[in-house]
Amino acid sequence: MTSAAAPRWLDETERDAWLNITRLLLLLPTALDRQLRDDAGLPHAYYMILAILSDQPGRAMRMAELARVTGTTPSRLSHAVASLEQRGWVERQACPTDKRGQIAQLTETGMASLAAAAPGHVAEVRRLIFDHLTPDDVVQLGTITGKLLTGLDA
Amino acid sequence: MTSAAAPRWLDETERDAWLNITRLLLLLPTALDRQLRDDAGLPHAYYMILAILSDQPGRAMRMAELARVTGTTPSRLSHAVASLEQRGWVERQACPTDKRGQIAQLTETGMASLAAAAPGHVAEVRRLIFDHLTPDDVVQLGTITGKLLTGLDA
Repeated sequence: MTSAAAPRWLDETERDAWLNITRLLLLLPTALDRQLRDDAGLPHAYYMILAILSDQPGRAMRMAELARVTGTTPSRLSHAVASLEQRGWVERQACPTDKRGQIAQLTETGMASLAAAAPGHVAEVRRLIFDHLTPDDVVQLGTITGKLLTGLDA
Repeated sequence: MTSAAAPRWLDETERDAWLNITRLLLLLPTALDRQLRDDAGLPHAYYMILAILSDQPGRAMRMAELARVTGTTPSRLSHAVASLEQRGWVERQACPTDKRGQIAQLTETGMASLAAAAPGHVAEVRRLIFDHLTPDDVVQLGTITGKLLTGLDA
Protein backbone atom coordinates (compact mmCIF):
# COMPACT_ATOMS: atom_id res chain seq x y z
CA MET A 1 0.00 0.00 0.00
CA THR A 2 1.48 3.29 -1.07
CA SER A 3 0.08 6.79 -1.34
CA ALA A 4 1.48 10.25 -2.00
CA ALA A 5 1.38 10.99 1.73
CA ALA A 6 3.31 7.86 2.76
CA PRO A 7 6.75 7.69 1.11
CA ARG A 8 8.89 4.59 1.41
CA TRP A 9 10.67 5.07 4.74
CA LEU A 10 14.48 4.84 4.93
CA ASP A 11 15.85 1.38 5.71
CA GLU A 12 18.53 1.01 8.39
CA THR A 13 21.52 1.33 5.99
CA GLU A 14 19.99 4.41 4.35
CA ARG A 15 19.15 5.90 7.73
CA ASP A 16 22.73 5.41 8.99
CA ALA A 17 24.16 7.01 5.82
CA TRP A 18 21.65 9.86 6.03
CA LEU A 19 22.40 10.61 9.69
CA ASN A 20 26.11 10.73 8.83
CA ILE A 21 25.46 13.06 5.89
CA THR A 22 23.35 15.48 7.94
CA ARG A 23 25.98 15.56 10.67
CA LEU A 24 28.67 16.30 8.07
CA LEU A 25 26.50 19.04 6.55
CA LEU A 26 26.36 20.62 10.00
CA LEU A 27 29.92 20.00 11.25
CA LEU A 28 32.16 20.26 8.19
CA PRO A 29 31.34 23.88 7.22
CA THR A 30 31.83 24.92 10.86
CA ALA A 31 35.24 23.20 10.99
CA LEU A 32 36.38 24.70 7.67
CA ASP A 33 35.12 28.11 8.72
CA ARG A 34 37.06 28.00 11.97
CA GLN A 35 40.46 27.44 10.33
CA LEU A 36 39.92 30.03 7.60
CA ARG A 37 38.59 32.68 9.98
CA ASP A 38 41.40 32.09 12.46
CA ASP A 39 44.23 31.97 9.90
CA ALA A 40 43.00 34.15 7.04
CA GLY A 41 40.17 36.25 8.51
CA LEU A 42 37.86 34.78 5.88
CA PRO A 43 34.68 32.72 6.25
CA HIS A 44 34.58 29.56 4.11
CA ALA A 45 31.70 30.90 1.99
CA TYR A 46 33.89 33.89 0.98
CA TYR A 47 36.86 31.62 0.26
CA MET A 48 34.62 29.55 -2.04
CA ILE A 49 33.57 32.66 -3.98
CA LEU A 50 37.22 33.64 -4.50
CA ALA A 51 38.18 30.06 -5.46
CA ILE A 52 35.31 29.73 -7.96
CA LEU A 53 36.15 33.08 -9.61
CA SER A 54 39.86 32.16 -9.80
CA ASP A 55 38.91 29.12 -11.95
CA GLN A 56 36.88 31.12 -14.50
CA PRO A 57 38.12 32.62 -17.77
CA GLY A 58 39.15 36.21 -16.98
CA ARG A 59 38.57 35.33 -13.29
CA ALA A 60 35.05 36.73 -13.79
CA MET A 61 31.53 35.34 -13.58
CA ARG A 62 27.99 36.66 -13.83
CA MET A 63 26.50 37.28 -10.38
CA ALA A 64 23.38 35.23 -11.25
CA GLU A 65 25.53 32.24 -12.23
CA LEU A 66 27.72 32.66 -9.13
CA ALA A 67 24.56 32.59 -6.95
CA ARG A 68 23.44 29.41 -8.70
CA VAL A 69 26.70 27.47 -8.29
CA THR A 70 27.13 28.54 -4.66
CA GLY A 71 23.53 27.60 -3.83
CA THR A 72 22.88 30.99 -2.29
CA THR A 73 20.24 33.66 -2.85
CA PRO A 74 21.08 36.75 -4.95
CA SER A 75 20.69 38.99 -1.88
CA ARG A 76 23.04 36.92 0.30
CA LEU A 77 25.57 36.74 -2.53
CA SER A 78 25.32 40.51 -3.01
CA HIS A 79 26.14 41.00 0.66
CA ALA A 80 29.16 38.68 0.47
CA VAL A 81 30.48 40.24 -2.74
CA ALA A 82 30.01 43.77 -1.32
CA SER A 83 32.16 42.75 1.65
CA LEU A 84 34.83 41.28 -0.66
CA GLU A 85 34.66 44.47 -2.77
CA GLN A 86 35.33 46.57 0.34
CA ARG A 87 38.52 44.58 0.89
CA GLY A 88 39.49 45.26 -2.74
CA TRP A 89 39.41 41.54 -3.57
CA VAL A 90 36.51 41.57 -6.02
CA GLU A 91 35.13 44.19 -8.42
CA ARG A 92 31.62 44.35 -9.84
CA GLN A 93 31.00 45.57 -13.38
CA ALA A 94 27.99 45.91 -15.63
CA CYS A 95 27.47 42.88 -17.85
CA PRO A 96 28.18 43.78 -21.50
CA THR A 97 25.50 41.41 -22.85
CA ASP A 98 22.74 42.04 -20.28
CA LYS A 99 22.08 45.55 -19.01
CA ARG A 100 20.43 44.37 -15.80
CA GLY A 101 23.17 41.80 -15.11
CA GLN A 102 26.39 42.26 -13.15
CA ILE A 103 29.74 40.52 -13.36
CA ALA A 104 32.00 39.82 -10.36
CA GLN A 105 35.71 39.74 -11.10
CA LEU A 106 38.58 38.68 -8.86
CA THR A 107 41.24 41.42 -8.54
CA GLU A 108 45.01 40.86 -8.36
CA THR A 109 44.83 41.60 -4.61
CA GLY A 110 42.01 39.08 -4.27
CA MET A 111 44.01 36.46 -6.16
CA ALA A 112 47.01 37.11 -3.89
CA SER A 113 44.83 36.77 -0.77
CA LEU A 114 43.37 33.50 -2.06
CA ALA A 115 46.88 32.20 -2.81
CA ALA A 116 47.99 33.19 0.71
CA ALA A 117 45.01 31.44 2.34
CA ALA A 118 45.16 28.30 0.17
CA PRO A 119 48.03 26.33 1.81
CA GLY A 120 46.47 26.49 5.29
CA HIS A 121 43.06 25.62 3.90
CA VAL A 122 44.39 22.67 1.87
CA ALA A 123 46.27 21.37 4.90
CA GLU A 124 43.02 21.51 6.89
CA VAL A 125 41.05 19.77 4.11
CA ARG A 126 43.69 17.04 4.07
CA ARG A 127 43.59 16.74 7.87
CA LEU A 128 39.77 16.64 8.04
CA ILE A 129 39.02 14.59 4.91
CA PHE A 130 41.75 12.84 2.95
CA ASP A 131 43.94 11.69 5.85
CA HIS A 132 41.02 9.44 6.87
CA LEU A 133 40.35 7.87 3.46
CA THR A 134 42.04 5.20 1.33
CA PRO A 135 42.66 5.92 -2.38
CA ASP A 136 39.67 3.64 -3.15
CA ASP A 137 37.47 5.64 -0.75
CA VAL A 138 38.42 8.85 -2.57
CA VAL A 139 37.47 7.40 -5.97
CA GLN A 140 34.15 6.10 -4.61
CA LEU A 141 33.42 9.37 -2.83
CA GLY A 142 34.02 11.26 -6.08
CA THR A 143 31.67 8.93 -7.97
CA ILE A 144 28.91 8.99 -5.36
CA THR A 145 29.02 12.77 -4.82
CA GLY A 146 28.93 13.17 -8.63
CA LYS A 147 25.69 11.16 -8.73
CA LEU A 148 24.23 13.32 -5.95
CA LEU A 149 25.11 16.53 -7.80
CA THR A 150 23.32 15.14 -10.86
CA GLY A 151 20.28 14.64 -8.62
CA LEU A 152 20.49 18.31 -7.64
CA ASP A 153 20.72 19.32 -11.33
CA ALA A 154 24.09 20.82 -10.44
CA MET B 1 60.96 19.37 -0.36
CA THR B 2 58.29 19.96 2.25
CA SER B 3 57.75 22.61 4.86
CA ALA B 4 54.98 23.59 7.26
CA ALA B 5 53.92 26.34 4.83
CA ALA B 6 53.69 24.01 1.81
CA PRO B 7 51.23 21.15 2.41
CA ARG B 8 50.96 18.31 -0.08
CA TRP B 9 48.57 19.69 -2.71
CA LEU B 10 45.44 17.71 -3.69
CA ASP B 11 45.90 15.32 -6.62
CA GLU B 12 43.33 15.31 -9.41
CA THR B 13 41.12 12.58 -7.91
CA GLU B 14 41.15 14.29 -4.51
CA ARG B 15 40.45 17.66 -6.11
CA ASP B 16 37.46 16.28 -8.04
CA ALA B 17 36.04 14.66 -4.89
CA TRP B 18 36.66 17.83 -2.88
CA LEU B 19 34.96 20.10 -5.44
CA ASN B 20 31.94 17.77 -5.39
CA ILE B 21 31.86 17.81 -1.57
CA THR B 22 32.03 21.61 -1.33
CA ARG B 23 29.26 21.94 -3.92
CA LEU B 24 27.10 19.50 -1.94
CA LEU B 25 27.83 21.40 1.29
CA LEU B 26 26.48 24.51 -0.44
CA LEU B 27 23.58 23.07 -2.45
CA LEU B 28 22.15 20.26 -0.33
CA PRO B 29 21.18 22.33 2.74
CA THR B 30 19.56 24.91 0.43
CA ALA B 31 17.54 22.19 -1.34
CA LEU B 32 16.45 20.56 1.94
CA ASP B 33 15.58 23.95 3.38
CA ARG B 34 13.39 24.84 0.40
CA GLN B 35 11.13 21.79 0.72
CA LEU B 36 10.77 22.04 4.50
CA ARG B 37 10.10 25.78 4.46
CA ASP B 38 7.57 25.47 1.65
CA ASP B 39 5.74 22.43 3.04
CA ALA B 40 6.18 22.70 6.82
CA GLY B 41 7.25 26.33 7.43
CA LEU B 42 10.41 25.02 9.06
CA PRO B 43 14.07 25.56 8.13
CA HIS B 44 16.15 22.37 7.93
CA ALA B 45 18.28 23.39 10.93
CA TYR B 46 15.12 23.53 13.09
CA TYR B 47 13.91 20.19 11.75
CA MET B 48 17.27 18.69 12.73
CA ILE B 49 16.93 19.98 16.30
CA LEU B 50 13.46 18.42 16.61
CA ALA B 51 14.66 15.14 15.02
CA ILE B 52 17.70 14.89 17.32
CA LEU B 53 15.59 15.57 20.44
CA SER B 54 12.99 12.98 19.35
CA ASP B 55 15.73 10.30 19.39
CA GLN B 56 16.89 11.06 22.96
CA PRO B 57 15.70 9.39 26.17
CA GLY B 58 12.86 11.59 27.48
CA ARG B 59 13.12 13.54 24.19
CA ALA B 60 15.45 15.89 26.07
CA MET B 61 19.07 16.95 25.75
CA ARG B 62 21.44 19.42 27.38
CA MET B 63 21.73 22.62 25.34
CA ALA B 64 25.55 22.41 25.39
CA GLU B 65 25.45 18.88 23.97
CA LEU B 66 22.82 19.87 21.39
CA ALA B 67 25.10 22.73 20.24
CA ARG B 68 27.99 20.28 19.91
CA VAL B 69 26.15 17.67 17.83
CA THR B 70 24.57 20.28 15.55
CA GLY B 71 27.93 22.02 15.00
CA THR B 72 26.45 25.37 15.96
CA THR B 73 27.42 28.04 18.49
CA PRO B 74 25.54 28.27 21.81
CA SER B 75 24.15 31.69 20.83
CA ARG B 76 22.83 30.51 17.45
CA LEU B 77 21.32 27.43 19.08
CA SER B 78 19.72 29.62 21.75
CA HIS B 79 18.10 31.71 19.02
CA ALA B 80 16.77 28.59 17.23
CA VAL B 81 15.45 26.99 20.43
CA ALA B 82 13.79 30.27 21.51
CA SER B 83 11.95 30.31 18.19
CA LEU B 84 10.88 26.68 18.62
CA GLU B 85 9.80 27.48 22.19
CA GLN B 86 7.58 30.31 20.88
CA ARG B 87 5.80 27.78 18.68
CA GLY B 88 5.32 25.55 21.72
CA TRP B 89 7.43 22.76 20.17
CA VAL B 90 10.33 22.80 22.64
CA GLU B 91 10.60 23.69 26.34
CA ARG B 92 13.73 24.73 28.20
CA GLN B 93 14.29 23.69 31.79
CA ALA B 94 17.08 24.08 34.32
CA CYS B 95 19.48 21.14 34.32
CA PRO B 96 19.12 19.16 37.60
CA THR B 97 22.84 18.25 37.71
CA ASP B 98 24.34 21.58 36.58
CA LYS B 99 22.89 24.85 37.83
CA ARG B 100 24.26 26.87 34.90
CA GLY B 101 23.14 24.29 32.35
CA GLN B 102 19.82 24.10 30.50
CA ILE B 103 17.91 21.21 28.99
CA ALA B 104 15.81 21.41 25.83
CA GLN B 105 12.86 19.03 25.67
CA LEU B 106 10.56 18.25 22.75
CA THR B 107 6.88 18.80 23.64
CA GLU B 108 3.96 16.66 22.45
CA THR B 109 3.03 19.44 20.00
CA GLY B 110 6.63 19.50 18.75
CA MET B 111 6.62 15.73 18.30
CA ALA B 112 3.35 15.97 16.35
CA SER B 113 4.77 18.73 14.13
CA LEU B 114 7.90 16.67 13.47
CA ALA B 115 5.75 13.64 12.60
CA ALA B 116 3.66 15.78 10.24
CA ALA B 117 6.75 17.19 8.49
CA ALA B 118 8.63 13.87 8.27
CA PRO B 119 6.90 12.18 5.27
CA GLY B 120 7.49 15.14 2.95
CA HIS B 121 11.07 15.49 4.17
CA VAL B 122 11.83 11.78 3.75
CA ALA B 123 10.34 11.82 0.25
CA GLU B 124 12.63 14.76 -0.60
CA VAL B 125 15.69 13.00 0.90
CA ARG B 126 14.86 9.95 -1.20
CA ARG B 127 14.40 12.08 -4.33
CA LEU B 128 17.63 14.05 -3.78
CA ILE B 129 19.87 11.28 -2.42
CA PHE B 130 18.82 7.66 -2.45
CA ASP B 131 17.04 7.55 -5.81
CA HIS B 132 20.45 8.23 -7.40
CA LEU B 133 22.43 5.55 -5.55
CA THR B 134 22.77 1.77 -5.80
CA PRO B 135 22.55 -0.30 -2.58
CA ASP B 136 26.38 -0.66 -2.77
CA ASP B 137 26.76 3.12 -3.05
CA VAL B 138 24.67 3.56 0.11
CA VAL B 139 26.84 1.11 2.07
CA GLN B 140 30.04 2.80 0.86
CA LEU B 141 28.65 6.26 1.55
CA GLY B 142 27.81 5.19 5.11
CA THR B 143 31.32 3.82 5.64
CA ILE B 144 33.13 6.82 4.14
CA THR B 145 31.02 9.43 5.96
CA GLY B 146 31.60 7.46 9.18
CA LYS B 147 35.36 7.79 8.67
CA LEU B 148 34.98 11.54 8.06
CA LEU B 149 32.96 11.98 11.25
CA THR B 150 35.75 10.20 13.15
CA GLY B 151 38.13 12.78 11.66
CA LEU B 152 35.92 15.53 13.05
CA ASP B 153 35.90 13.86 16.48
CA ALA B 154 32.15 13.58 16.06
